[in-house]
Amino acid sequence: MSNTRIGIVGYGNLGKGVEAGLKQSSDLELAGIFSRRQPEQLETTSPAYHMDDLLGFKDSIDVLILCGGSQKDIPVQGPELAKTFNTVDTYDNHNEIPVHFAKLDQVARENDTVAVISTGWDPGLFSLNRLIAESILPKGETYTFWGPGLSQGHSDAVRRVAGVKNAVQYTVPKEELVDAVKDKQSIEYNKLDAHKRMVYLVLEEDADESKVRETIKTMPDYFEGYETEIHVIDQETFDKEHAGMPHGGTVMRQGKTTDDHTAIYQFGLDLDSNPEFTAAVAIAYARAAGKLAREKQYGAKTVFDIAPGYLSPKSGAQLRKELL
Amino acid sequence: MSNTRIGIVGYGNLGKGVEAGLKQSSDLELAGIFSRRQPEQLETTSPAYHMDDLLGFKDSIDVLILCGGSQKDIPVQGPELAKTFNTVDTYDNHNEIPVHFAKLDQVARENDTVAVISTGWDPGLFSLNRLIAESILPKGETYTFWGPGLSQGHSDAVRRVAGVKNAVQYTVPKEELVDAVKDKQSIEYNKLDAHKRMVYLVLEEDADESKVRETIKTMPDYFEGYETEIHVIDQETFDKEHAGMPHGGTVMRQGKTTDDHTAIYQFGLDLDSNPEFTAAVAIAYARAAGKLAREKQYGAKTVFDIAPGYLSPKSGAQLRKELL
Repeated sequence: MSNTRIGIVGYGNLGKGVEAGLKQSSDLELAGIFSRRQPEQLETTSPAYHMDDLLGFKDSIDVLILCGGSQKDIPVQGPELAKTFNTVDTYDNHNEIPVHFAKLDQVARENDTVAVISTGWDPGLFSLNRLIAESILPKGETYTFWGPGLSQGHSDAVRRVAGVKNAVQYTVPKEELVDAVKDKQSIEYNKLDAHKRMVYLVLEEDADESKVRETIKTMPDYFEGYETEIHVIDQETFDKEHAGMPHGGTVMRQGKTTDDHTAIYQFGLDLDSNPEFTAAVAIAYARAAGKLAREKQYGAKTVFDIAPGYLSPKSGAQLRKELL
Repeated sequence: MSNTRIGIVGYGNLGKGVEAGLKQSSDLELAGIFSRRQPEQLETTSPAYHMDDLLGFKDSIDVLILCGGSQKDIPVQGPELAKTFNTVDTYDNHNEIPVHFAKLDQVARENDTVAVISTGWDPGLFSLNRLIAESILPKGETYTFWGPGLSQGHSDAVRRVAGVKNAVQYTVPKEELVDAVKDKQSIEYNKLDAHKRMVYLVLEEDADESKVRETIKTMPDYFEGYETEIHVIDQETFDKEHAGMPHGGTVMRQGKTTDDHTAIYQFGLDLDSNPEFTAAVAIAYARAAGKLAREKQYGAKTVFDIAPGYLSPKSGAQLRKELL
């Protein structure tokens, strides 16, 4: 079978992650990167084109991976591009997923394309595990803990505080709660109390440290109400230890197989690079989208609708022999 | 939609687990338990019948869950029963899975039935995670650790040693190896070195403890070559702490999203009752088998071939809204 040819739409962190990740799979190949910027402005040695030229690649791209933002890009690009291409996105606006699905399902069915939405890890792999855990253990509770992970929005908010030169913010699950769930204890869980916020910042030379701390801790919506730890560090340490985009988390279900017997189902990720892993998930689902399109299984799909075997380059017989 | 009617074939620990588990799902109902023993000999209040009468239930059973052993029962019963019924099994003889699949696939296709094989957790959920992890992180290593878990065969072997009144054996992964994988270190892994064996035993009154210990530690195939810990306890402690059938384990993949960035993918189970959880997995796949049969998607299937949404009683729209 010939390779599945992948187009990347948008060249931010996620697009770069897809570009790098595609090199790991010999059954997939990069057909081109499409950006609203001029191709010569992109720092890449891969073939790059302007978005306006995308339709001309109709016959040389099997699947597009949409790497733009969930707020403004994907809701517009998704329905438009699904008219012509098979698409995969990482749309992560949980509340709007049913609407996004409905729009893409209609476009994809009308145009004989496949549109896989909301891949990545949450939504995505975490959703998959919430579903499987709940289906197998109907009596129980599911808990999701996010982090330790870099939060871009909160980091930006801290950087805007007067006296702050540089800053990152990590969301960290409270270990004692995670351990209690693993230990089969019942806990009171709400998202806010289950996580704390850790800030690492570098001060401007003449900054008032106590005022900076106070401003951060009382920032409404972002830090107020959360347990917040603030660590002041020097620029050198900052550059050395806080340049990455780590993330991860855990989905756990505490279920009762009978009244006396508990089962703990646990899925966890620990990622040095959030965008690279998100890209890796999208790539596997792009492989699946290619196969579904060849089978004429058109329409919008989520991670719930795709048999896991579609994610692999291996045949069914190979998978049964090697991995079952 | 009317309920999916489930038949249980075989009434050992697994069959009892299915009987108990079915009470947790309102879309499934128990049609009957079928055993080679006389129905009145089974300790149950559920409808029970002799295996010889099973064919008479052709029209009142949607899916059979085969709860016999993988050595002798399933290889014979599977192909025979798949002629008439949709079936789910927990066949766990890894090496023979391709042959088992081929046999059942032929029978199921010829007779318009669905046969889901090798559900449970290993094979089953562990296999699923090995596949997903490898598909998303093509560059990396997958590690499987089993336990802490009761090993029936090893417990039996210890009980046969002269001077041993009662015994259980648990397989336990070496924590330092599990932690090293989580910690992104590279390790030398082989199944034997990655696990230790823990024995809890009660001695006969006049037994020679040192001789018992020596006999166990040098038992070929079972303990020789393994790190083995032996704990002598009294009968009261034995009854209180070692009556259950706990098991579990962890599948982990250490992958490189790029040369500098590692991702840890982890799936774990901690089960008070191995047979009850295995039953819970088989039940979810029985629900899937019922749906596949209604859609006329006939043939043998594994966990790799079934979209996760089929495991849930919820509709696609509900799943997208609640769990994605």
